[in-house]
Amino acid sequence: MYDNNDAKTFQGLIRALESYWEGCGCIIAQPLDIEVGAATSHPMTFFNAIGPEPVAASYVQVSRRPMDSRYGYNPNRLQQYYQFQVIIKPSPKNMLQLYLDSLKKIGLNHIKNDIFFVEDNWENPTLGAWGLGWEIWLNGMEITQLTYFQQIGGLECRPVTGEITYGLERLSLFLQGVNHVYDLIWSYSSLGPVTYGDLFHQNELEQSIYNCEHTDIEFLFKIFSQYENEIKYLITMTRPLLMPAYERVLKAIHIFNLLNARKVISITERKNYILRIRKLSKMIAEAYYASRKKLGFPMCMRKL
Amino acid sequence: MYDNNDAKTFQGLIRALESYWEGCGCIIAQPLDIEVGAATSHPMTFFNAIGPEPVAASYVQVSRRPMDSRYGYNPNRLQQYYQFQVIIKPSPKNMLQLYLDSLKKIGLNHIKNDIFFVEDNWENPTLGAWGLGWEIWLNGMEITQLTYFQQIGGLECRPVTGEITYGLERLSLFLQGVNHVYDLIWSYSSLGPVTYGDLFHQNELEQSIYNCEHTDIEFLFKIFSQYENEIKYLITMTRPLLMPAYERVLKAIHIFNLLNARKVISITERKNYILRIRKLSKMIAEAYYASRKKLGFPMCMRKL
Repeated sequence: MYDNNDAKTFQGLIRALESYWEGCGCIIAQPLDIEVGAATSHPMTFFNAIGPEPVAASYVQVSRRPMDSRYGYNPNRLQQYYQFQVIIKPSPKNMLQLYLDSLKKIGLNHIKNDIFFVEDNWENPTLGAWGLGWEIWLNGMEITQLTYFQQIGGLECRPVTGEITYGLERLSLFLQGVNHVYDLIWSYSSLGPVTYGDLFHQNELEQSIYNCEHTDIEFLFKIFSQYENEIKYLITMTRPLLMPAYERVLKAIHIFNLLNARKVISITERKNYILRIRKLSKMIAEAYYASRKKLGFPMCMRKL
Repeated sequence: MYDNNDAKTFQGLIRALESYWEGCGCIIAQPLDIEVGAATSHPMTFFNAIGPEPVAASYVQVSRRPMDSRYGYNPNRLQQYYQFQVIIKPSPKNMLQLYLDSLKKIGLNHIKNDIFFVEDNWENPTLGAWGLGWEIWLNGMEITQLTYFQQIGGLECRPVTGEITYGLERLSLFLQGVNHVYDLIWSYSSLGPVTYGDLFHQNELEQSIYNCEHTDIEFLFKIFSQYENEIKYLITMTRPLLMPAYERVLKAIHIFNLLNARKVISITERKNYILRIRKLSKMIAEAYYASRKKLGFPMCMRKL
């Protein structure tokens, strides 16, 4: 009746990717309910990239980037947008082919279109993560990042986790043949077509004004330090609480991003803040690795 | 290859409900990335229940209830669980039938099973919301709440929004015929069956310890007041920022819930806190109604 089964609606695109990666053996996880700047920050990726235990998962994650606030004027840059994330460990040899097949599945012919790969050594300094990989560009727009993790939380990745991060809005712009994100059809409903703009235009405007002009800077500085103390406490307990600690790292990173959007952190201070967060991520990763080792890496019994 | 297409996996249950409600004309929205106690708190429900404009939407929302922390021992009570939410305004006359048909769709025969409806006038005091409706019980377990909103943000609902909230874990326990939530199959993957316990048991334990024993009470009291001030500022601006303000109401409610889990708020103080939050929700609802009225309620052009 209301058919959104092809990838020509935003909702249909999500379903098509979920169904494709499910067919490849990934579980579909649910998004995290904490503000993050990228799907990589989801505990499903951070914790699962640590140690030898295998993983195969995909999920949607809304990402908030206060520094990308453009008051709703920019056609493809938003302070809030959706990523579709795939992680597979050990990274399969045919990951690139799996990715290209996923494009076929959503109706994007990579022979006919101008798709190219730009080598890009991706880095997420606050999470102590970096990897080798590519940005994937379609007709002049970056639509995906494909990465082989080398480090996470400062630990070497053995084996390597392969990560694919699709930018859903940009892919959708192409698939729907429209120029502005607000003209995207989210889905066809009993109320007619609902656009991305119907759902998020007012929100994008208000959040942009908030991010760039009205956050309480003094309060943000204070809770950043407070979270830092709380994380240290949670990690150094006799029996550390790593998952609550990690969530607080994510909260601290979001606060740091909000402060950056207000341009109140100088370049040298910036480095210092990143180091402070990275140190905490590293402590969590190390403690998590140790705790899994103690258990004999139980998921290793499952082999791809 | 990896078939999770029936509702016999947790992942398959989500897909089946999404696909059913999509067929009924609902859009499928994405979960909110802020900690909430119930799917009703999602802006998709709160703002859309205000005023005369129609809506038809469904979404999954992870819900956090610190007071329900049970250290992973309880088979069906969790401090973090998943709800599937449906909202339709105006509420359709056949909503109850639509709900019963959804049970059929997921393979639950309501003739053969012991399903009964308990009248329950639902209330969410912090959001200034209440409604007439039913709890729906299956073989002795509450699995759904069906509500006709009478008020939201203290405003009369005209027309009434119909809301259906499924408890996904409990439904899944029944559909999979298992007794403990950690034995639920989340999905079949290339790594074999992944259980709910694989994904969340460790998290439930750690978050329970954190919620009940290690939150920083003084810090929580401080940021509650700080959020309250920030919300007042955002609402009383010449051009109010209602969406950022509402998100901060949700943050304040979560802090309040964390404080309750530590049992540091007395019954009389509790009332006072609820009133303080409700007042802010009400101010947001009123300002939102006024802003939509000024625009001539544009979504009213869409009729069911």
